[in-house]
Amino acid sequence: MKNIAVLGSTGSIGQNTLAVIRSLPGQFRAVALSVQSDTVLLKKQIREFKPRMVCVADPQRALKLKKEFGGLVKVFCGQVGLGQMVKDRQIDQVMVAITGAAALPPLISAITAGKEIALANKEALVISGQLLMGLARKHHVLIRPVDSEQSAIWQGLGGYCAKHVRCVYLTASGGPLWKLPAKSFKRVSRERILKHPRWKMGKKITVDSATLMNKGLELLEAMFLFDLSFRQIKVLIHPEALVHSMVEFNDGITLAQISATDMRVPIQYALSYPQRFTGPVRGIDFYSWPQLHFAKPDLDKFPCLGLAYQAAKSLGTLPAVLNAANEIAVEGFLQGKVSFIKIPSIVEKLMRRHRIISNPGFSQVMAADNWARLEAKCLTGVV
Amino acid sequence: MKNIAVLGSTGSIGQNTLAVIRSLPGQFRAVALSVQSDTVLLKKQIREFKPRMVCVADPQRALKLKKEFGGLVKVFCGQVGLGQMVKDRQIDQVMVAITGAAALPPLISAITAGKEIALANKEALVISGQLLMGLARKHHVLIRPVDSEQSAIWQGLGGYCAKHVRCVYLTASGGPLWKLPAKSFKRVSRERILKHPRWKMGKKITVDSATLMNKGLELLEAMFLFDLSFRQIKVLIHPEALVHSMVEFNDGITLAQISATDMRVPIQYALSYPQRFTGPVRGIDFYSWPQLHFAKPDLDKFPCLGLAYQAAKSLGTLPAVLNAANEIAVEGFLQGKVSFIKIPSIVEKLMRRHRIISNPGFSQVMAADNWARLEAKCLTGVV
Repeated sequence: MKNIAVLGSTGSIGQNTLAVIRSLPGQFRAVALSVQSDTVLLKKQIREFKPRMVCVADPQRALKLKKEFGGLVKVFCGQVGLGQMVKDRQIDQVMVAITGAAALPPLISAITAGKEIALANKEALVISGQLLMGLARKHHVLIRPVDSEQSAIWQGLGGYCAKHVRCVYLTASGGPLWKLPAKSFKRVSRERILKHPRWKMGKKITVDSATLMNKGLELLEAMFLFDLSFRQIKVLIHPEALVHSMVEFNDGITLAQISATDMRVPIQYALSYPQRFTGPVRGIDFYSWPQLHFAKPDLDKFPCLGLAYQAAKSLGTLPAVLNAANEIAVEGFLQGKVSFIKIPSIVEKLMRRHRIISNPGFSQVMAADNWARLEAKCLTGVV
Repeated sequence: MKNIAVLGSTGSIGQNTLAVIRSLPGQFRAVALSVQSDTVLLKKQIREFKPRMVCVADPQRALKLKKEFGGLVKVFCGQVGLGQMVKDRQIDQVMVAITGAAALPPLISAITAGKEIALANKEALVISGQLLMGLARKHHVLIRPVDSEQSAIWQGLGGYCAKHVRCVYLTASGGPLWKLPAKSFKRVSRERILKHPRWKMGKKITVDSATLMNKGLELLEAMFLFDLSFRQIKVLIHPEALVHSMVEFNDGITLAQISATDMRVPIQYALSYPQRFTGPVRGIDFYSWPQLHFAKPDLDKFPCLGLAYQAAKSLGTLPAVLNAANEIAVEGFLQGKVSFIKIPSIVEKLMRRHRIISNPGFSQVMAADNWARLEAKCLTGVV
């Protein structure tokens, strides 16, 4: 029985994690939950999973919850409380399903406490991947990826390391626009962009899928997680989104990971590794699924991908700037203040203006993130 | 540096093995070679690879070779000589690339001597898989498959065992006939059958590809090699022959092995495992290869596959009968004595006539093999 802390338990990955735990009651137990503010759903989760501790970021709501459930469950509050909670001896593994840079402090606490980590958060790795992986190595912690592409690479590697890899094919469904000619991008509607062909996801990540910035961020993640060079990573369009990524070894052999587009699959593997348990998700029935297609992405059409390669080449504080500028530009797009084709120009402008710091510490990374956010807000009018 | 014995060094797999050894001179050395009778090519190989010992099955030719090369290389002769040679202390790994049941005695000697085994021979496993795997377990020997499909399953498993497997997709290019309607099989020409769309192979195995018996024999191999039930193995038509097989785990995740249709790939992996070395074969370029297709095989059209499943269900001496009857029926087809559509009927007839012995010893397996061969010869007129 493995005791799991689910940070961000009311979000999409958090709920899917609890679904996996629910389906394997003999293997996993949710002993700790954390939320930003959604205590309505949290209360339901407390009643069902009976965790020993919970953390609510919002102090008012934490207090209210403590009054209601204080006898049943230990209630923590805010970032400091979250940092304390993840270190609890009863926790074996921490699922980090908080979005944004807010995941960084509890993630660092959990690594330092030597907990097993399942990492669903993208930003922490993108902006401070080298630091986090260094910390994980120091504390002998394996960071298990939850993102379907990273999970696929992890499984494709099967224990082999970067020096045995000729290349990694990081697959991308291509998003809603990949078949559209670039000149139509100006006129494409917000509705079309927000309708992803394969995955149901939040709005921010759906826009990132349309610009392929999502794949750019994953390129950075993969570099850090598996100690790969950006030259070893090839983004590959694969519209069916069944092959979640592939590893080509130096001996000419490729291993591809294939599964349903269901987040419970990589979540379960991140929890169960090195075991595999019979889960609720069925495999792909190759007797009924006849075709898989692959294509090379057009970098002129999707400049965000080129920008990500540039950040991957420079490293230092540049990935943090790429990520923060993109976040604000996308927010501007969602607020109707930035046109779709302006997203990459905003990111590019800030990347050009930024003075890169090599081998930064956490505070320097956070400073670069803040700088890019503020500058991007000025450029876009996002508040 | 690993010292390799290549049994059957002048055959197709043998020559490819030497090509791999040639391409990785710092990793492998060919210290022993064996041939049936082709001493012309063997002499060339001796000059190039400078093995310490060779074995020639034909006694006359062995004697001639000894007179010519006796000072340079130790010459063994016949089956007894081969059994002695493979036990030599200088040999680390034995590549068994002899075809037919003739591989069984040296294979048993090599396992008993605790040598690492790379097994390219199909028949030994098909007819006596349970016995061989039991022997290998007893001597703590890992049998490394060389067949591209079995190598793919081995790699897909990545150390997980049969209880974690929901199913294995054993891929088949479908051979030259899979798109043809069954009623045209009567009129199909020998030339068409002997022209395989993807692999260049010997005549016997090319006919087996057309009947899908090849896949049936591989189904039996896979069962024994990986301790799978026949129910876990699904044959899957995949015309591009790039996915060499796939493993679907109980958690809904499938791992597929993809590589060029070049035997040097699985040969190199069988030699190098657990290492991977940069080899001469390039991977599949997914930027230029756009499509993979899959389909369910039609068992009515390819009755040999159904017969193999029947043998896989019964086991005992039945797989040996399937294999021997098929060998003679195919030989009859190649000699023009048996029509293409009669091949499965001959195999079926002998399987029905055979009295199965459960858990047979090697001698009982060989007796069943002999019985089926003789009976099939009577039926077909093959001499």
